[in-house]
Amino acid sequence: MASEKPLVAVTCTAPVNIAVIKYWGKRDEELILPINSSLSVTLHQDQLKTTTTAAISKDFTEDRIWLNGREEDVGQPRLQACLREIRRLARKRRSAGDEDLLPLSLSYKVHVASVNNFPTAAGLASSAAGYACLAYTLAQVYGVEGDLSEVARRGSGSACRSLYGGFVEWQMGQRADGKDSVARQVAPELHWPELRVLILVVSAEKKLTGSTVGMQTSVETSPLLRFRAEALVPARMAEMARCVMERDFQAFGQLTMKDSNQFHATCLDTFPPISYLNDTSRCIIHLVHRFNAHHGQTKVAYTFDAGPNAVIFTLDDTMAEFVAAVRHSFPPESNGDKCPASRSRFLKGLPVRPALLSDELKAALGMEPTPGGIKYIIATQVGPGPQVLDDPHAHLLGPDGLPKPAA
Amino acid sequence: MASEKPLVAVTCTAPVNIAVIKYWGKRDEELILPINSSLSVTLHQDQLKTTTTAAISKDFTEDRIWLNGREEDVGQPRLQACLREIRRLARKRRSAGDEDLLPLSLSYKVHVASVNNFPTAAGLASSAAGYACLAYTLAQVYGVEGDLSEVARRGSGSACRSLYGGFVEWQMGQRADGKDSVARQVAPELHWPELRVLILVVSAEKKLTGSTVGMQTSVETSPLLRFRAEALVPARMAEMARCVMERDFQAFGQLTMKDSNQFHATCLDTFPPISYLNDTSRCIIHLVHRFNAHHGQTKVAYTFDAGPNAVIFTLDDTMAEFVAAVRHSFPPESNGDKCPASRSRFLKGLPVRPALLSDELKAALGMEPTPGGIKYIIATQVGPGPQVLDDPHAHLLGPDGLPKPAA
Repeated sequence: MASEKPLVAVTCTAPVNIAVIKYWGKRDEELILPINSSLSVTLHQDQLKTTTTAAISKDFTEDRIWLNGREEDVGQPRLQACLREIRRLARKRRSAGDEDLLPLSLSYKVHVASVNNFPTAAGLASSAAGYACLAYTLAQVYGVEGDLSEVARRGSGSACRSLYGGFVEWQMGQRADGKDSVARQVAPELHWPELRVLILVVSAEKKLTGSTVGMQTSVETSPLLRFRAEALVPARMAEMARCVMERDFQAFGQLTMKDSNQFHATCLDTFPPISYLNDTSRCIIHLVHRFNAHHGQTKVAYTFDAGPNAVIFTLDDTMAEFVAAVRHSFPPESNGDKCPASRSRFLKGLPVRPALLSDELKAALGMEPTPGGIKYIIATQVGPGPQVLDDPHAHLLGPDGLPKPAA
Repeated sequence: MASEKPLVAVTCTAPVNIAVIKYWGKRDEELILPINSSLSVTLHQDQLKTTTTAAISKDFTEDRIWLNGREEDVGQPRLQACLREIRRLARKRRSAGDEDLLPLSLSYKVHVASVNNFPTAAGLASSAAGYACLAYTLAQVYGVEGDLSEVARRGSGSACRSLYGGFVEWQMGQRADGKDSVARQVAPELHWPELRVLILVVSAEKKLTGSTVGMQTSVETSPLLRFRAEALVPARMAEMARCVMERDFQAFGQLTMKDSNQFHATCLDTFPPISYLNDTSRCIIHLVHRFNAHHGQTKVAYTFDAGPNAVIFTLDDTMAEFVAAVRHSFPPESNGDKCPASRSRFLKGLPVRPALLSDELKAALGMEPTPGGIKYIIATQVGPGPQVLDDPHAHLLGPDGLPKPAA
């Protein structure tokens, strides 16, 4: 494939999001329609993002995709659903008379390359950022505008929440065709500037139940999940939106923790039961409640997705003290906290100033330290939605439509 | 206090019970009335029992109690409630004209001594056996007949289920005064002779949330618990009674596991959340499901109370193979399985013949062994209710009304 052939390439980035009202369970497996609405915080791409390049050319003979440098099967159903959906929207647009916006044929094959700037092993929901980035990038290439919820959702349900920055809700919708099951922004990126996010990456080796299979089993077997979705989530969605709008950290934190716990409760009520939390996760939960009890108010809050890692919400004035409490309870292994180089490896992302723990707080935590229980911390904050990168050097695909060698 | 003074002493034993439909939450803290009915299996006293001696004498100047050789505060409210209740029943009986059955004055003070034949550290629900034994022994001393549910229940809710052998339900009742909140036998001790019980005592150091405080917090904060109690437990009680009556192990085992999981789910939905299961408990759950999947049927079932120890139900033809699977996955520490003496320390109670695991089963379990995760196993079976010991040498109190020195 010669390098001088006409090729259109676009590169975009998209963020990770973390749900504070959890999505767990589909009412339609094919269309990926949820049994309840959910609400998430978009994390900043300075720390965590997916970058995707999509290129189309008349010379491409087939659709191809590379994830983190490795070619993957483009035939997998969810990827196919996204491609089909974006092409359908593009065709619809063209038939509406916007033909001039589509210089290239819709029949051209596409090459896609995507990388995460964080290890998959971190157990973060990379599929949400990945499919949001895919949907956003393909939309640029094919000139599709408007809401991309349906495209992203067909890849991974929670991906539709990564299409917006700030605070985002995914409205479950009522229609059988899913047209009203869309994401919308509740509050923009800069709405709550004091809010901080810490990701505590927990050491774990065990294989987990994947979330697709897990939520399917939960829907089939957990009577508590059905009750939660129908009777409890609607009021929680309204309350969480209020907490965000009013920047009410006390109530935001408490509801975030309660909803995380309830999600994991429904996992345990699944048969066979699903356990994503391990003993370290439980120690973190304990630490947060002790920390808050010591201060007499909710200063930090945890939430856990389908894995043992904790995501902590707090405000900027509390971050340093809580990080110190984490270091105290989970000292980095191999004297990692002794030298500055190791310190930076344990704590990534936003700078956090060192803080001393008071003896009262140490006593209040009342825990035996668990060395090595937490591998590292990523400090981040609320961030914007997907971005187009204008710099052509950012392309992950070369002029030949194949992945550039990693720098 | 001279030893020749007239003294009436009675010694009884009572069993531990393990719930298969769980009790968690009170609708009346004072009367100890539950928010849902529960159903339990009475364990055999050859392995686990409480022994209690009660003595009354006109020479005693105060009520006194010794637990496992140590004098305890007789003024604690639950103990007082039991004493008040049994004396009320005795008074009622006397006023009904049975005066000749009560040679001793109701105003006599009582001395009580009680011991368990199993370590409290084992985390088994010793309070159920303890209060059942107290109620039963006091009833003998005071000549009270009939249902003792209310007396035992006032000490510890689940204690009323230890008043009967075999399979027992505690009907929640509807009345505000609790008169219809009573235990009754669903099926007698010898109804299902093949049923076996294994208690897997898990190594754990952590302090747990006590069940009294825990269930109170759950009732106040968990919406899932309320839903479970009102909407789910009634059908589960009926189904569990059917499983027992028809000796349907498949259905019995599955419902037992589901109900244990749901109870722990409501603990996790409590705020702050309560976690009684630890990583070893979760490994045991995993092991049971893998074992059953390998056999293509439910051959073993787990249940967990307010602690990390597992109670396993199985049938006599499966016990040896499952114990071998447990030894394989949780090899006893310090080469404990090498010599017969250590072997007996790891496996207590009913004899279990050694069994070889097939390579297929070993592969199916697919777990990294966790040495020392399980401290020991107690093998037992369904057993009878409380017993009166006729042998006067069994008395824990001497003729002076004080505890005999431990033999």
